[in-house]
Amino acid sequence: MTEKKNIAIMGAGLVGSLLSLYLAKRGFKVDLYERRPDMRVSTLDGGRSINLALSDRGWRALRGIGIEEEVRQVAIPMYGRMMHSENGELTYQPYGKEGQAIYSVSRAGLNMALMNLSEPNPDINYHFNMQVQDVNLRTNQVALRNHSANTDETIAPDLIFGADGAFSLVRGALQKTERFNYQQSYLEYGYKELTIPAADGGGWLLEKNALHIWPRGNFMMIALPNTDGSFTCTLFFPYEGERSFASIKTDTDLLNFFLEVFPDAVPLMPDLAQDYFCNPTGSLVTIKCFPWSYEDKVLLIGDACHAVVPFYGQGMNAGFEDITVLDKMMETFDGDWETLFKAFERKRKPDADAIADLAVMNFIEMRDKVADPNFLLRKKIETRISEQYPDKWLTLYGMVTFSDLPYSYALETGQIQDKIMQKIMKHINTIEDYNKPEVQQLLQEQLVHKEKLKAYQSQEV
Amino acid sequence: MTEKKNIAIMGAGLVGSLLSLYLAKRGFKVDLYERRPDMRVSTLDGGRSINLALSDRGWRALRGIGIEEEVRQVAIPMYGRMMHSENGELTYQPYGKEGQAIYSVSRAGLNMALMNLSEPNPDINYHFNMQVQDVNLRTNQVALRNHSANTDETIAPDLIFGADGAFSLVRGALQKTERFNYQQSYLEYGYKELTIPAADGGGWLLEKNALHIWPRGNFMMIALPNTDGSFTCTLFFPYEGERSFASIKTDTDLLNFFLEVFPDAVPLMPDLAQDYFCNPTGSLVTIKCFPWSYEDKVLLIGDACHAVVPFYGQGMNAGFEDITVLDKMMETFDGDWETLFKAFERKRKPDADAIADLAVMNFIEMRDKVADPNFLLRKKIETRISEQYPDKWLTLYGMVTFSDLPYSYALETGQIQDKIMQKIMKHINTIEDYNKPEVQQLLQEQLVHKEKLKAYQSQEV
Repeated sequence: MTEKKNIAIMGAGLVGSLLSLYLAKRGFKVDLYERRPDMRVSTLDGGRSINLALSDRGWRALRGIGIEEEVRQVAIPMYGRMMHSENGELTYQPYGKEGQAIYSVSRAGLNMALMNLSEPNPDINYHFNMQVQDVNLRTNQVALRNHSANTDETIAPDLIFGADGAFSLVRGALQKTERFNYQQSYLEYGYKELTIPAADGGGWLLEKNALHIWPRGNFMMIALPNTDGSFTCTLFFPYEGERSFASIKTDTDLLNFFLEVFPDAVPLMPDLAQDYFCNPTGSLVTIKCFPWSYEDKVLLIGDACHAVVPFYGQGMNAGFEDITVLDKMMETFDGDWETLFKAFERKRKPDADAIADLAVMNFIEMRDKVADPNFLLRKKIETRISEQYPDKWLTLYGMVTFSDLPYSYALETGQIQDKIMQKIMKHINTIEDYNKPEVQQLLQEQLVHKEKLKAYQSQEV
Repeated sequence: MTEKKNIAIMGAGLVGSLLSLYLAKRGFKVDLYERRPDMRVSTLDGGRSINLALSDRGWRALRGIGIEEEVRQVAIPMYGRMMHSENGELTYQPYGKEGQAIYSVSRAGLNMALMNLSEPNPDINYHFNMQVQDVNLRTNQVALRNHSANTDETIAPDLIFGADGAFSLVRGALQKTERFNYQQSYLEYGYKELTIPAADGGGWLLEKNALHIWPRGNFMMIALPNTDGSFTCTLFFPYEGERSFASIKTDTDLLNFFLEVFPDAVPLMPDLAQDYFCNPTGSLVTIKCFPWSYEDKVLLIGDACHAVVPFYGQGMNAGFEDITVLDKMMETFDGDWETLFKAFERKRKPDADAIADLAVMNFIEMRDKVADPNFLLRKKIETRISEQYPDKWLTLYGMVTFSDLPYSYALETGQIQDKIMQKIMKHINTIEDYNKPEVQQLLQEQLVHKEKLKAYQSQEV
């Protein structure tokens, strides 16, 4: 197991930092190379999103290394979605059962916490301001630019983990190898981060324990709470078109637009124009690739091999789950890194593809359907089904967010359930209709059908 | 229209050479830069496939510039597929109606013919041994390596066409721009070109006017006739697995394998071992990307923006059709290159995606289903339908190969027809069953349904 001890992790973001803890626990010596300065010293932000939704898969990975409780102190539970209509009406929809929540955490706060937890470990060393220039896959040499010293350095670790994000330079080296499958797809939407500050004297200006959504058809805004009383809002908006980043050019354009579509939010956003025109516009990319490894030398992990759009709140959670899965595989690992890497990428690829597709699908749901009364009725009926048949029916959202079922299983099962819901909703106009005998009978038949289908699918695998 | 006259085409392959003729006809001055030597002088082959199937879309583009007849002299019509079973039985399946054929042409022969036709034009200049190093999209400067003179040169054309194939370096520059969508997907199959030489004293050892297929489930061999009496065979074979490129290591492995699976071909292939072990193994890639243009400066065309696998015989035909479509758009073009490029890529992208997907789907059909009696019966029934209802039913293969209907229309219509065929084949066990009243009635109902569906789809667009 200790055949190769000299491990370099490229990227000291959330996934790289957490991975270092897991590897050090298994007795490896780990060096992390990060192109940015140490965020605990310098507050350079670099345009990354400010807060994130942590859910069960993420918590599981934190628990696995014993740091769950520490993070929970600074996480704000969000028990449901709070929808804001154009005339300011609020509608609330719980995410799961009583007590189930996703948690708003600060990206920087969590990253710094992981750094602080790992850095005292003598087997873990952070190297900041070190930017990957080139990875030589034959020799495993990595050329680095040291931005502090303005020098070029070369390292030759035994093993390289590419945790360097959606625009991974480690993946760039793999992309030059034969028959590498690669896909980058952008949505025609960008995002802009805006702020609702804390109330005068402290406290939150909107319901604290909810994820707020202003769904508006082909665009939307969301807001997540921060521990300081503020909310970080994100506007997801087309790049081009009648209402788009391209069409809003002046403070007046902006204010008129916001007053029309987000009237209840405007009074809460004193710095709207400054935020809008000074903050960068982020792009929304899905990255898929395969393979994720090169021989026994390199493994990509997290966004570097499966970047997803943020609409299921699963990007970080999926990256953390990579670590859980890899760590579990290492329990029976006999020192053959190539076999480990190949087994990992084979196991994990279908799940990474599934969450990528689910995230794009959820964008449609969030911006568009959550404002639709039929959709809300359907959600309520589905909740009733999952309450009545807790062993036979988990909602898709629940499987993704509140379970550790494989994402690919969740996607498949969700598609089967979707067809059942279509059939059942033909007989339902109000929540009371759920108890009608014909609905109950149809449901029972469909549940039997579903079990058969699942049994058949699992045989196929 | 003559606002920009100084056009550079990167790549003097089939698409680049044909494009030069079309552009020169419209009064532009065209320089072609090709990294290989002049194939009319040097016979360096570079691992490209030896012959290609030219079909209606390709002929149309050649006709548009008045060179159809010249090419027809050296093209061999193939009127159908000739399937070779493991025990040497032959089954023949026509591709279309009486007289319809796809044509085997030599890639090099066609390319040289296009060069010979274009080079005398004083507005067309070829520059060989000139390899693109870098394209600066801001300044439109192209850095080139002159392999003849061993020097580096820079050109600054007004307009750049990237006709430099699946591994396009012009596309490489676009890939570095913001929000560029890109996908490269490899099949887990490679290909190897082999030879059946001409008969002693001349002539063809297999039926000349057919495309020969040895379908074997998860692999296959095909053969296309050449004008010199030989056939070029292509083995499509998994890279890994029990029967694969990886598993065949020696002459004995090879011979035993061929004797088992292609027994009727072995006696015709005296140089089998030499061909197999000396010829390179080609990979099979699909490339999709978007956009295809950059401002009013650069347009990708052909494989550079939509490389497909060869199983529908449409790679070159699709590239040639790009030129037909672009040329038609230039008829109403008022000198605004950016608008032209944007209109072209928007029109052409869905068709490029469709033929890419169809080509992968046809691989399954060719290697696997064409040996299945049910599949052959179904093909015969479908032929009967298209004979009975020539205005209402064109086979998918016919739409792709023998029409200029958009590929995307062919794909959609093919999917509708596929569902109809599934319903109809439930009532059919022999070709005679086609005349049964219930089959005829079902068919008529389905055709009405199909018309409605198509009308609905065209409204959606």
